[in-house]
Amino acid sequence: MKIPVVKNILEANERISLELKQLFDQKGILVINLMSSPGAGKTSLLEKTIEDLKDKVRLAVIEGDVQTTLDAERIGKYGIPTVQINTHGACHIDGNMVKDALPELNLDEIDILIVENVGNLVCPAEFKVGEDYKVMILSVTEGEDKPAKYPLMFQESTVLLINKIDLIPYVDCNVDKIKKEALKINPKLTVFPISCKTNEGLSAWTQWLLKTWKDKADGL
Amino acid sequence: MKIPVVKNILEANERISLELKQLFDQKGILVINLMSSPGAGKTSLLEKTIEDLKDKVRLAVIEGDVQTTLDAERIGKYGIPTVQINTHGACHIDGNMVKDALPELNLDEIDILIVENVGNLVCPAEFKVGEDYKVMILSVTEGEDKPAKYPLMFQESTVLLINKIDLIPYVDCNVDKIKKEALKINPKLTVFPISCKTNEGLSAWTQWLLKTWKDKADGL
Repeated sequence: MKIPVVKNILEANERISLELKQLFDQKGILVINLMSSPGAGKTSLLEKTIEDLKDKVRLAVIEGDVQTTLDAERIGKYGIPTVQINTHGACHIDGNMVKDALPELNLDEIDILIVENVGNLVCPAEFKVGEDYKVMILSVTEGEDKPAKYPLMFQESTVLLINKIDLIPYVDCNVDKIKKEALKINPKLTVFPISCKTNEGLSAWTQWLLKTWKDKADGL
Repeated sequence: MKIPVVKNILEANERISLELKQLFDQKGILVINLMSSPGAGKTSLLEKTIEDLKDKVRLAVIEGDVQTTLDAERIGKYGIPTVQINTHGACHIDGNMVKDALPELNLDEIDILIVENVGNLVCPAEFKVGEDYKVMILSVTEGEDKPAKYPLMFQESTVLLINKIDLIPYVDCNVDKIKKEALKINPKLTVFPISCKTNEGLSAWTQWLLKTWKDKADGL
């Protein structure tokens, strides 16, 4: 009983996600689905990304969270369009939730839309939300074994940000080892080691984002 | 369509979990369902717990993981009965998976069985696996806002272990604040700040476990 139901839910989501993608393409918006474990630094990355890019492109954020509007409040301070989705217990964002959030955004005034998913290294990887690319964060405190243990998110992502590299001296973890393990699971991953605390490595990420948006805009 | 199906799955799981609980009670086994985000330190806690208690009680472990047998290999080295469950994509362990693992264990030779769940701060809290108590770990690197953002696991747990307190000098996080936020969500939580790296605070946890096992054995 369980498997066909899950299959139907996933298929319905694929359809909604494709519609969203077509709408975003038509509006020239680059959409990023940002995923990680709880506390790996998704909202901190958004804050740093906005600080760097807010005068160069028009950013908007959809915040996904099981409960609370804490993250939307953090992002809202930067004066960019922000919508909070509360999943009320659900462990990921799906296409319908993003569709429901769209009336709150003026799509004609957005260049890059970042969807911050629920903190979870498993389920969000299964549900598209109309994105061009999935970007994931792994923090160095989570350990080198995570790509092997949670392979789907690494397989589905285009970019892996290895965050909290400022903590490297204090944890039993090696950035090169994480990178190697991640590339075993997905050899096409673009990997950026970063620290949202010291800003190390962040400009490589924001340059990637800017270039990827320009490439999409040029191709449309 | 989706909601009644989810309800049926949860109800079926409650039934299986109750049968498991009755079996474990009959055998005098204390069962702990150990949950946390990926990389918060579940397997490290198990290693430290086994080192401290292996000559005092008969321990056994069921390891839950999306993929790989990495954790079971780490635990197996200690010479205690260990069974690996691979969920093949599923984001939590349920009662049926534990039931399927039981033929691999001799229940007449176990005092305490610890089920290490999949690393995920959301879904595992919804599925009982025949446990007496849920125990969760939050690492200080995950941040003080996590109890408010992922309330169900904090509500369902009896014990909260705040791990990696050795990293406190290097992160923007305060143990008292985490504790306060967690107690707001669940005032009955027993909280132990610990470090699996320096061993700080671990004896309070193993003493709790030992006492809880004795209390159960005396009550049966």
